[in-house]
Amino acid sequence: MSTSTDQPERHAPDAALGQRAPDLVCELCRLFYDMGWASGTGGGIAIREGATLYMAPSGVEKEKLQASDIFELELDGAIRRAPQDGARLTACAPLFMAAFSHRNAGAVLHSHSLDVVMASALVPPGQPLRLTRLEMMKGLEGVGYFDVHEIPVIDNTALEHQLRDRMERAVIDWPKANAVIVRNHGVYIWGRDASHAKTQAECLDYLCRAKVRLHAAGIDHTANDRSQPDDAD
Amino acid sequence: MSTSTDQPERHAPDAALGQRAPDLVCELCRLFYDMGWASGTGGGIAIREGATLYMAPSGVEKEKLQASDIFELELDGAIRRAPQDGARLTACAPLFMAAFSHRNAGAVLHSHSLDVVMASALVPPGQPLRLTRLEMMKGLEGVGYFDVHEIPVIDNTALEHQLRDRMERAVIDWPKANAVIVRNHGVYIWGRDASHAKTQAECLDYLCRAKVRLHAAGIDHTANDRSQPDDAD
Amino acid sequence: MSTSTDQPERHAPDAALGQRAPDLVCELCRLFYDMGWASGTGGGIAIREGATLYMAPSGVEKEKLQASDIFELELDGAIRRAPQDGARLTACAPLFMAAFSHRNAGAVLHSHSLDVVMASALVPPGQPLRLTRLEMMKGLEGVGYFDVHEIPVIDNTALEHQLRDRMERAVIDWPKANAVIVRNHGVYIWGRDASHAKTQAECLDYLCRAKVRLHAAGIDHTANDRSQPDDAD
Amino acid sequence: MSTSTDQPERHAPDAALGQRAPDLVCELCRLFYDMGWASGTGGGIAIREGATLYMAPSGVEKEKLQASDIFELELDGAIRRAPQDGARLTACAPLFMAAFSHRNAGAVLHSHSLDVVMASALVPPGQPLRLTRLEMMKGLEGVGYFDVHEIPVIDNTALEHQLRDRMERAVIDWPKANAVIVRNHGVYIWGRDASHAKTQAECLDYLCRAKVRLHAAGIDHTANDRSQPDDAD
Repeated sequence: MSTSTDQPERHAPDAALGQRAPDLVCELCRLFYDMGWASGTGGGIAIREGATLYMAPSGVEKEKLQASDIFELELDGAIRRAPQDGARLTACAPLFMAAFSHRNAGAVLHSHSLDVVMASALVPPGQPLRLTRLEMMKGLEGVGYFDVHEIPVIDNTALEHQLRDRMERAVIDWPKANAVIVRNHGVYIWGRDASHAKTQAECLDYLCRAKVRLHAAGIDHTANDRSQPDDAD
Repeated sequence: MSTSTDQPERHAPDAALGQRAPDLVCELCRLFYDMGWASGTGGGIAIREGATLYMAPSGVEKEKLQASDIFELELDGAIRRAPQDGARLTACAPLFMAAFSHRNAGAVLHSHSLDVVMASALVPPGQPLRLTRLEMMKGLEGVGYFDVHEIPVIDNTALEHQLRDRMERAVIDWPKANAVIVRNHGVYIWGRDASHAKTQAECLDYLCRAKVRLHAAGIDHTANDRSQPDDAD
Repeated sequence: MSTSTDQPERHAPDAALGQRAPDLVCELCRLFYDMGWASGTGGGIAIREGATLYMAPSGVEKEKLQASDIFELELDGAIRRAPQDGARLTACAPLFMAAFSHRNAGAVLHSHSLDVVMASALVPPGQPLRLTRLEMMKGLEGVGYFDVHEIPVIDNTALEHQLRDRMERAVIDWPKANAVIVRNHGVYIWGRDASHAKTQAECLDYLCRAKVRLHAAGIDHTANDRSQPDDAD
Repeated sequence: MSTSTDQPERHAPDAALGQRAPDLVCELCRLFYDMGWASGTGGGIAIREGATLYMAPSGVEKEKLQASDIFELELDGAIRRAPQDGARLTACAPLFMAAFSHRNAGAVLHSHSLDVVMASALVPPGQPLRLTRLEMMKGLEGVGYFDVHEIPVIDNTALEHQLRDRMERAVIDWPKANAVIVRNHGVYIWGRDASHAKTQAECLDYLCRAKVRLHAAGIDHTANDRSQPDDAD
């Protein structure tokens, strides 16, 4: 693919296409706002490019961000460059760091998706969210249709930074998952780059919506399914 | 941030960016129409800038407003400038005034959001809507995750202006809330400026949607939540 | 308001703004497609301007229409001008005529809205859809919050033109309604001009969605409502 | 209709308008992404033009495709031209071929629509999805309102290409259907050209959404319907 930066904008939300990381943070925030993942001033995204992390400021309307609003951080989380208007770094920063440090993420996304929140409410204390027999699971990194895929769910705290240790433990304890769900709050989900994190979030969102809508409709989607893992025509 | 007026339009729905208040009223009305808060000819917004209030006309399609359609009022509610085509001032004007007069609002928004309407139908007579243990509550001014946040609900009247006294009493009686819900009708919600009112409305809308969808799905989102206010890792 | 035709396009879906009727038919069809009222090749709109009716062709994707695709009819329904490509007139034409002839409609809209279809399924045979105590009713022509507003529901037929007599009878028998719902099919709804027909359709759609969602959630929205028609503060 | 290629873009998603097939694949993928049928990297479309089939690559964000990303295949499925960047052909290719080979399709669409997935979960093993008495059925090729229209449902497999034989048998065994639903996965649906495949998919999606929402709301939409196939006014 081309590395030209004058691609038409709609094709550009992908670091691979040569778009600058701060612009990409802004563009993805607008997309996530449109998806309902970042309304109010919620949600956000952090992108790693080389030895730099790019993150949004705290408490602002995510769909209105411009490149000059974006923070630059060292890989250890230290702020290298802050916007000139006195903005505060997102309170999600320590949580984003868990995925960058322990899982070599290229991008981490935080969403307040109501479908994820409702799915989290269905999960008993101390258990993970379990997914099985939905094709969209195959969009998640390393997951198959017949797997019982588990995503950790942690309880919420009063302040976002207080989640840091819980988040870090979940990231370490669940190496097959690339997401941590925070109950009644939302999800942190990551991928090898911004495009990958976005597709992972789209898949998880779809799967949680399926879980919740099936529950609400009283449908057990495994009841009529006679397929077996070794089926092949 | 820049105060230039030639910012690209999508970044401009914010008085802080130097956009003129009448244009901002129109732009926000289009956004609210897209959100389903102002379909038919419903909903609206009023913005205060200095010693002037800006409000939309009554009974028109809110998504088609232009700056020349917007009324200018004195802070006491007297009309200073009316559009030339004989439009009537929005019937919401006396209700907007309650928040401007008693709560020093910078902008007040009126939405017909169906999620808010359905949430209002769940609230027993004389009680407020109660919200707790949903992260999005933290997007509301001064509210925390473990709070039981209360928003007053008043019954509807045949004509909008007849709501004035009920509205005013609720505004005064519930100083911790920045919204008044009108049962089977919608919500008045305000903030220190247009952007703030918009984010407050987005958060409340999300929370009412959560309330209604959880109710419909038979899910108690507090049942599995073991978190405590003093948790910290 | 200006009658100039060089208004920016997004402000123009209104005959009052001087937009040509065929363009207005196309623009509204695109809007209705976006709303989910005209997917597949369903739905449509007819507009009267002076002594001419403008209608879309049959069986085409409504969101792709261009002005040259639009039929021109005499007020008695005779085709005055057909597109050059051999398109057939919409099968809804005789149904649109009922509202033009008997109710002096300026525009008639036909929607396949799933919310209306689901609401129609709730209505017992021979009865109308009844609406009460929802503020959005006030957006419907001549309807108040405390009214029990009735909209006729007729059963469907194998072919659209076979609905003509049922439609005409309903239009005549229910003079307070400006819509006829066809069970498991959709709705015909009209107004004094295109803008008015559009706002009427938005209100009815909202009200049917409310009816269906309240039913599905097991919520009786009148149970907690203590308001009375003569309330005034 | 014109065969000019400089039609404004929004009117062009139709081979009949002279748009090049690779561009049409990309444009429809963006539309399907917006509809929620191709999130993550799911879904896709294949178009036949003369003796060439056009298909998207595998595992990429469908809404970002450009014409140069599209594969060209012989009618027997052999790859004639592959993109230069080493992309893999969609894993759906053998499934698309079943409709091209056995049903003379002009375009085949694969969607992960959650409404279709949920409807599939309602269907007992070995039975088809059955639809009746919904007007939108008339948008499906050769189907009437009073028909009981059946669409085959096959069980899913671990890998997409393993579905090939099941898919082919269903295509042959159900000649009145122009779609095959894959349980807990999505649907393959086709038409005589890209526009037709798109309208077929829109109708089926609407009908599955109706089925699922009616089920969830506990509404039997046939209970109040007194219409008969030979009704005519």
